[in-house]
Amino acid sequence: MRATVFHAAGDVRVETVPDPKIVEPTDAIVRVTHACICGSDLWFYRGDAKAWQPGWRTGHEFMGVVEDVGAAVRTVKKGDRVIAPFAFSDGSCEFCRKGIQTSCTSGGYWGGENDGGQAEAVRAQQADGTLVKIPDGASNDEALLRALLPLTDVLGTGHHAAVSAKVTRGTTAAVIGDGAVGLCAVLAAKRLGAERIIAFGRHPQRLELARRFGATDVVTERGDEGVARALEMTSGGPEAVLECVGNEGSMAMASAMARPGGTIGYVGVPYGSEKGLDLRRMFGDNVALVGGVAPVRAYIPELLRDALAGKLDASPVFDLAVDLDGVPQGYAAMDGRTAIKVLVRP
Amino acid sequence: MRATVFHAAGDVRVETVPDPKIVEPTDAIVRVTHACICGSDLWFYRGDAKAWQPGWRTGHEFMGVVEDVGAAVRTVKKGDRVIAPFAFSDGSCEFCRKGIQTSCTSGGYWGGENDGGQAEAVRAQQADGTLVKIPDGASNDEALLRALLPLTDVLGTGHHAAVSAKVTRGTTAAVIGDGAVGLCAVLAAKRLGAERIIAFGRHPQRLELARRFGATDVVTERGDEGVARALEMTSGGPEAVLECVGNEGSMAMASAMARPGGTIGYVGVPYGSEKGLDLRRMFGDNVALVGGVAPVRAYIPELLRDALAGKLDASPVFDLAVDLDGVPQGYAAMDGRTAIKVLVRP
Repeated sequence: MRATVFHAAGDVRVETVPDPKIVEPTDAIVRVTHACICGSDLWFYRGDAKAWQPGWRTGHEFMGVVEDVGAAVRTVKKGDRVIAPFAFSDGSCEFCRKGIQTSCTSGGYWGGENDGGQAEAVRAQQADGTLVKIPDGASNDEALLRALLPLTDVLGTGHHAAVSAKVTRGTTAAVIGDGAVGLCAVLAAKRLGAERIIAFGRHPQRLELARRFGATDVVTERGDEGVARALEMTSGGPEAVLECVGNEGSMAMASAMARPGGTIGYVGVPYGSEKGLDLRRMFGDNVALVGGVAPVRAYIPELLRDALAGKLDASPVFDLAVDLDGVPQGYAAMDGRTAIKVLVRP
Repeated sequence: MRATVFHAAGDVRVETVPDPKIVEPTDAIVRVTHACICGSDLWFYRGDAKAWQPGWRTGHEFMGVVEDVGAAVRTVKKGDRVIAPFAFSDGSCEFCRKGIQTSCTSGGYWGGENDGGQAEAVRAQQADGTLVKIPDGASNDEALLRALLPLTDVLGTGHHAAVSAKVTRGTTAAVIGDGAVGLCAVLAAKRLGAERIIAFGRHPQRLELARRFGATDVVTERGDEGVARALEMTSGGPEAVLECVGNEGSMAMASAMARPGGTIGYVGVPYGSEKGLDLRRMFGDNVALVGGVAPVRAYIPELLRDALAGKLDASPVFDLAVDLDGVPQGYAAMDGRTAIKVLVRP
């Protein structure tokens, strides 16, 4: 089959690789119908993820159709259309039962040394604990399928930011970051009942989408100016801050603007964000830091219900679609910020 | 009157200062009967708190008897025995109502430019929102009064660590730090129903007290060795970590040992602890950081009930008692770690 392979910073290629095979009885083989390129893929694409090795597979977001299952698989079968969260998990360990499947004792992430989603097919480990069947009726509705695709990562991640930051009915929330995750965090905060949602970003068309997703205010200032605006607009800071970037500046903003007693829900993979964390300020005002890598698997059932009902659609974050051969060009577009998020149709 | 005054690192003196007077109608004058020296006083005593100015008053923990009240004071009157949390607060602002009185918009801390507790008397701002009356019956029971004194700070702070770390019935908790706050955190975790309490410290007699307060295990290793012991003893880490030190090493231990999905309840004033925070590890396993300066005022009613009922007594942390003239010697004893915590009887 063909799959995207990492070679070096700025160099991913679509190549022929061995076809995936059932190795463990808990495996499934999934023919990928929809995949994505993620903002976090840019860490290795830009050479910032030093651990990445030439030859590793790429892509952790995919949906598809089950082609084969191992002898122990019970919950999905050949022909089922399924959605996969970006991490696989056994569904039965202590952490899976607690809803943090990303810490599964038998789990892992797609891509790297495992198969990646930016490919024709994937050997899907821990199929029962990981894959979620999409009802048969949805199978031929391409618009609906595109609305489900963000549940593989960005919508679940934005939702995790909102849940971690304790967004509930009436909350005043700030969302830092206008990438796909930040935009999904706006949508998730709205869904959870936030009364006011202040979206921080720089790009007019992304902020326009933020408004469409439920942002009541958009702020283009950042750093101290952005913080000052947030404090002024909310008379002392938003109680929930959804940190969706993960760098020093975004975390500095988050820890400076959160209202006393408030919570930063952080889902931006930390690349320098620890340097921005103002722990003394947070300590003095009891600002909590909650979040981490999103246990997307835990959220899929709830979000899927709303998406299938037509009440939740993050697919407008996809502003470029490519086929498998177009994946390298998709990376370049995301790197150059000419695309928010790239849809891949292998 | 006489009060303790900061002059320079290593130099606090008991001097004659002007008698306190009612300035605002919300003030009370409290004759101090019991005060303490706090581990956090060592920050200025050791020259680590650069903002401290010569002439500033010291001491933020005190109880006493009301001598006079301003015209607006309603909840305490002359002759009442009262307990003061280490911060004053108006009791009515948004943050007081939310139970984070330490972020009160009209609040502040004792000592510094305000009167300090290591003195004969204190001008107590925001008396209604701050002071808690001790029932008259307790007035002449010195052992009971000493059991109430830790409610001014260390017991409320240890309790805040436990509450922030979500200790509840059955929790496995680790307490990092064998100072008075750490020991009180053990007591608080026990009170909240923790099933297993692992106390980390270095001093045999303090760890002995930790056992007396409810620690089921004590560990003297620190750093990587301490973390390895914690992971081994709990098969993957304690779900609640009570960080009661505030330096780089203690926070590094906390963030390395917390169980996936667990919470660090931190109450050690951050002096370098931000450097120890392993945000990537916390992110990967959804370990939350919750806590900050303890809103002790919020906890006094609940803890006072138990203390008055004889069910809660942290007074064994006081292992040295001095009169007002003995305060400088009390600082030296705490600095030299020959005393856990010093009681001052002006």
